[in-house]
Amino acid sequence: MLSKNQIKRIQSLARKKGRRDEGCFIAEGNKLVEDTRAVFECDMLLATRAWIASHPHLTSLPVQEVTEAEMAKVSQLTTPADVLAIYRIPQYRLDVESLKRELVLALDTVQDPGNLGTIVRLADWFGIRHIVCSPETADLYNPKVVQATMGALARVKVYYTSLPQFLAAMGRSRVYGTFLDGSDIYRTPLSETGVIVMGNEGNGISAGLEPYIGNRLHIPSYPVGQPTSESLNVAVAAAITCAEFRRRQTE
Amino acid sequence: MLSKNQIKRIQSLARKKGRRDEGCFIAEGNKLVEDTRAVFECDMLLATRAWIASHPHLTSLPVQEVTEAEMAKVSQLTTPADVLAIYRIPQYRLDVESLKRELVLALDTVQDPGNLGTIVRLADWFGIRHIVCSPETADLYNPKVVQATMGALARVKVYYTSLPQFLAAMGRSRVYGTFLDGSDIYRTPLSETGVIVMGNEGNGISAGLEPYIGNRLHIPSYPVGQPTSESLNVAVAAAITCAEFRRRQTE
Repeated sequence: MLSKNQIKRIQSLARKKGRRDEGCFIAEGNKLVEDTRAVFECDMLLATRAWIASHPHLTSLPVQEVTEAEMAKVSQLTTPADVLAIYRIPQYRLDVESLKRELVLALDTVQDPGNLGTIVRLADWFGIRHIVCSPETADLYNPKVVQATMGALARVKVYYTSLPQFLAAMGRSRVYGTFLDGSDIYRTPLSETGVIVMGNEGNGISAGLEPYIGNRLHIPSYPVGQPTSESLNVAVAAAITCAEFRRRQTE
Repeated sequence: MLSKNQIKRIQSLARKKGRRDEGCFIAEGNKLVEDTRAVFECDMLLATRAWIASHPHLTSLPVQEVTEAEMAKVSQLTTPADVLAIYRIPQYRLDVESLKRELVLALDTVQDPGNLGTIVRLADWFGIRHIVCSPETADLYNPKVVQATMGALARVKVYYTSLPQFLAAMGRSRVYGTFLDGSDIYRTPLSETGVIVMGNEGNGISAGLEPYIGNRLHIPSYPVGQPTSESLNVAVAAAITCAEFRRRQTE
């Protein structure tokens, strides 16, 4: 049985302030917990009696049995799951030199939690192990983001830092960005490593970052020159760009 | 000033039953209204005094001035806009023969409104003018979908019909689908026209549709064979697939 204070504490993890104070975040649902429990330090695992009975091998984790009514109180899902993990937020150290040998995403104030979660998931698909975000980007540990990653946050490291400083350290020639006036991505050389910058949902890449971006790319619309939507959703543009970088490498 | 009945009627358009009863849907915000007003028959345009003053050329539309408080009552947005259009839902006739000369998307029970809106927007970007949806797919005229299309619903026709019947009429050799066990999309011939089927968020393409799909594609993860996310978000997969079809045509 959960105490009032425990319930309050878990509910507080839905908010950034609560997560900062507690140093923890939540992940809900059997698949998500299975994908993440080997990676994150588990503070507490809330589970229904049925879930515990069907997972006898998990007894090394700090499991607490809860009723469905208790689960509903602490869940952030419309339909609460059978299991909810409370994990410690990991502290990753950004190592610019090792990132120079990889393909990395940088997010400039991507604000929608669903977009961030989708980007983490597609980064995982394309073997991108590091995402560097401006401090104004949505918080990875927001429960909506965690759920939208579908477990990919266990395999992709996400950092929050000043992008001008990070991009300057990476070097202009290594940095790519997508722009409406960039050069056709399909006719531009793409390197195996580097940083791909994706901009904010409404405003794109901020003007202050442009000096750090040595390679301006554009995803061509079809047919070229016809009236069309003004832009693509940021997760969609990130997906097409990452897919093209990886296609070149396996060509 | 809006009457109680008017407010009730507009609020009812947030629900599918209300839209069916009224034959109308809503679109909110200056950009969305500007993008759509030439295309859809406008039943009523609610606007604040400031918006009306800055749009003197729109007097041919049935404009009704509302206060910000009234707008907040009928708006589906967290931050209500200055303008809200009520449009008649258009009735499009599906013409299989003319669709055989185009690249078309088919959606098999895509349920998330944000995903559907994003797919309509990217279809527009890639010059795809027709999307054929199973009846269980999210409703295009759901306000969340309308807003997520960012105006693209003015340029893309969306139909709801039985997919087995539609795909059978198109012919198996013309139909493509993405599967985890399909052949590498980058190493498979893609035709200029045809149907690309995208599946449900949780279950992919339903087993009942597989007999109608002559071409099974797969978006390769990177590096091939490494553990990764089990799948991509449906809008992301649609984007990469459409981008690749169009890239081939302009190669």
